[in-house]
Amino acid sequence: MRNKLNIGLFGFGCVGNGLFDVLNKSNLLDATISKIVVKSPNKTRSIGSEHFSFDKNEILHNEEINVVVELIDDAKAAFEIVSEALSRKKHVVTANKKMLAENLDTLLALAKENKVSLLYEASVGGSIPIIRNLEEYYNNDSLSGVLGIVNGTTNYILTQTNYGKDYETALAEATALGFAESDPTLDVDAYDSKYKLLILIKHAFGVTLSPEQIFNYGIRNIKPQDVRYASEKGYRLKLFSRGEKVENKLVGFVAPHFITEDNVAYNVNNEFNSVTVEAMFSDKQLFQGKGAGAYPTASAVLSDVSALQFDYSYEYKKSNNTENINFTNDINLKIYAGASNLAALDIFQWIEKEEIFQGKDYAYVTGIVNLKNISGVDFNKEHDLFFAVLPE
Amino acid sequence: MRNKLNIGLFGFGCVGNGLFDVLNKSNLLDATISKIVVKSPNKTRSIGSEHFSFDKNEILHNEEINVVVELIDDAKAAFEIVSEALSRKKHVVTANKKMLAENLDTLLALAKENKVSLLYEASVGGSIPIIRNLEEYYNNDSLSGVLGIVNGTTNYILTQTNYGKDYETALAEATALGFAESDPTLDVDAYDSKYKLLILIKHAFGVTLSPEQIFNYGIRNIKPQDVRYASEKGYRLKLFSRGEKVENKLVGFVAPHFITEDNVAYNVNNEFNSVTVEAMFSDKQLFQGKGAGAYPTASAVLSDVSALQFDYSYEYKKSNNTENINFTNDINLKIYAGASNLAALDIFQWIEKEEIFQGKDYAYVTGIVNLKNISGVDFNKEHDLFFAVLPE
Repeated sequence: MRNKLNIGLFGFGCVGNGLFDVLNKSNLLDATISKIVVKSPNKTRSIGSEHFSFDKNEILHNEEINVVVELIDDAKAAFEIVSEALSRKKHVVTANKKMLAENLDTLLALAKENKVSLLYEASVGGSIPIIRNLEEYYNNDSLSGVLGIVNGTTNYILTQTNYGKDYETALAEATALGFAESDPTLDVDAYDSKYKLLILIKHAFGVTLSPEQIFNYGIRNIKPQDVRYASEKGYRLKLFSRGEKVENKLVGFVAPHFITEDNVAYNVNNEFNSVTVEAMFSDKQLFQGKGAGAYPTASAVLSDVSALQFDYSYEYKKSNNTENINFTNDINLKIYAGASNLAALDIFQWIEKEEIFQGKDYAYVTGIVNLKNISGVDFNKEHDLFFAVLPE
Repeated sequence: MRNKLNIGLFGFGCVGNGLFDVLNKSNLLDATISKIVVKSPNKTRSIGSEHFSFDKNEILHNEEINVVVELIDDAKAAFEIVSEALSRKKHVVTANKKMLAENLDTLLALAKENKVSLLYEASVGGSIPIIRNLEEYYNNDSLSGVLGIVNGTTNYILTQTNYGKDYETALAEATALGFAESDPTLDVDAYDSKYKLLILIKHAFGVTLSPEQIFNYGIRNIKPQDVRYASEKGYRLKLFSRGEKVENKLVGFVAPHFITEDNVAYNVNNEFNSVTVEAMFSDKQLFQGKGAGAYPTASAVLSDVSALQFDYSYEYKKSNNTENINFTNDINLKIYAGASNLAALDIFQWIEKEEIFQGKDYAYVTGIVNLKNISGVDFNKEHDLFFAVLPE
């Protein structure tokens, strides 16, 4: 009944190392890592050199290996490995959200053609089983929205700014704690959150978007005045990956949001991730777990490996019924926007202004804007500005 | 590929009414309620009398009905209906935790023998898909614990006491809001939480317990002094349904717990439910959603109905491997216990005392007790006492 899994592993960082310990040193699963391919021959590693190779074909051309676990950083190299593995009829488990977001339909077609599974629970929300839930539990319900805090680094930084720290101090701390990369662009400019939203939207609504279609705005430009504004109003600041379906209209974007205490994500702090799922006939469900770090990722990868024992694959049932769903940025949002002067805020093409404040070196406006009017601007590069979506 | 579902419904309260609206007035699912059996012929109902019958055999003996949805209060009558439905090879969806807890293995054997599904997501945690997750996602992982806030009524009351209200006021509010029954015993004495724990333990660890094996202590006896103690220490009070496996030892009980801010359930307030799942190779996952009320229940029932379209049934994989798991109450707990005088607290057979306080008409002790030494006492009836488990 269970399949014996013979695994070829690409990459041997913390996650790969942990996975090796669990699979090869316990009898928990009938799964063994028989070969590990790494890039650098010169690193000292915790296990014997007989396990390693530097030639990807030692895994890809080995017919006894039936599962490839891909855990490398480089999205381009990962795509080559994963697509060849699928073509050679090996199941694949990966955590590489960038690779997935950029090549989703190609990879799904390859998996289907070769009748193998491509699983990637670890790519979104750390150890939260969100993809599996969207696939299995919410499959026939009419989902109306997913709202994710899916980047642990930025959530850590925002939590610390909620506590009164400034952005630079919080970022430095996140780096020191190992949450943030040395180049944090992918995190703080919300690219990582965008790739993950793309994957969530595929499993929630059946639609494959391209990364270019999704507006992403991060937290790089947050100023002490913005934090003070939030704190005076009792708001907390969260970077939301937001996907919503209203009738046939699908909206998806990433932006900072001010939220009030009645939002179930209000207490999702520091490196925690969460996804709130809203369905037509059900209440809001919050899934919460640790997002950043090797341990949550390893646990999600392990779950996928474990599911392969029982021939599990995603079915993408919702993708059969998407002809009438139109992706659009045509959505009105109520936002707060702060800058050094009021004129700088004209960029938002306000539909309606509610509050206008002008101080000595800081001004803000709240009001209604339409996402399609501003989605052409890369606000990550507008360092004088900061904006966040306000509660409804 | 999808099965056409022809449903017979028992009970027509809020949940049944909502379900009828969704299934018979929309085209969301290929499922129709063709007959509804109710007890009282004299109630005014929102839909025509042609839908109703007062004879259960109009559903049970109708061969065209392939699904029974059972939504009545009476556990004994429900058991008769459900077991006959299963025997007649009808799938069953139920939310009746008392009936399930008292007859689980009998019902599972019947379902297996007749090759039909018995689904009951609505029986635990309202709309939180916790059973499905324990079945599907955590199936092969080594689960070590489940910790549930699974009774919305008591969580509402405890939240209000955390805010400074006394027990009686909070209970009256819960009743006024429709959360608490006119006889709240099942809720406040933690029987409801126990039945749900029994179901959680079955899906988490594969073991069927009987309700008598599980110690349950509720919140009826909480006093203002206990609330004050918690608030001085920064604790919040939660009624936890707690199942844990340590090696081959399985522990399960329901009792109030004082928890600190670092517990992920700290902010699960009012009528919300949550289940924290802890697995050997993964972090703690929190599942949160609304627990009490017709709407969450209806949404969980709808999910089960929807799953039946695809021939879904629980597999109970973990139940194949339970020979070596021993249920026991032999566990040391650190507790707080308060009463009008110190002598009353001797009942706990303290292994170790840490703090002893004696005031004019209130005394408390903190320290270590062993559950097996106290599990013979029905503390719900010891009105002078209150105890709660302390954080580790």
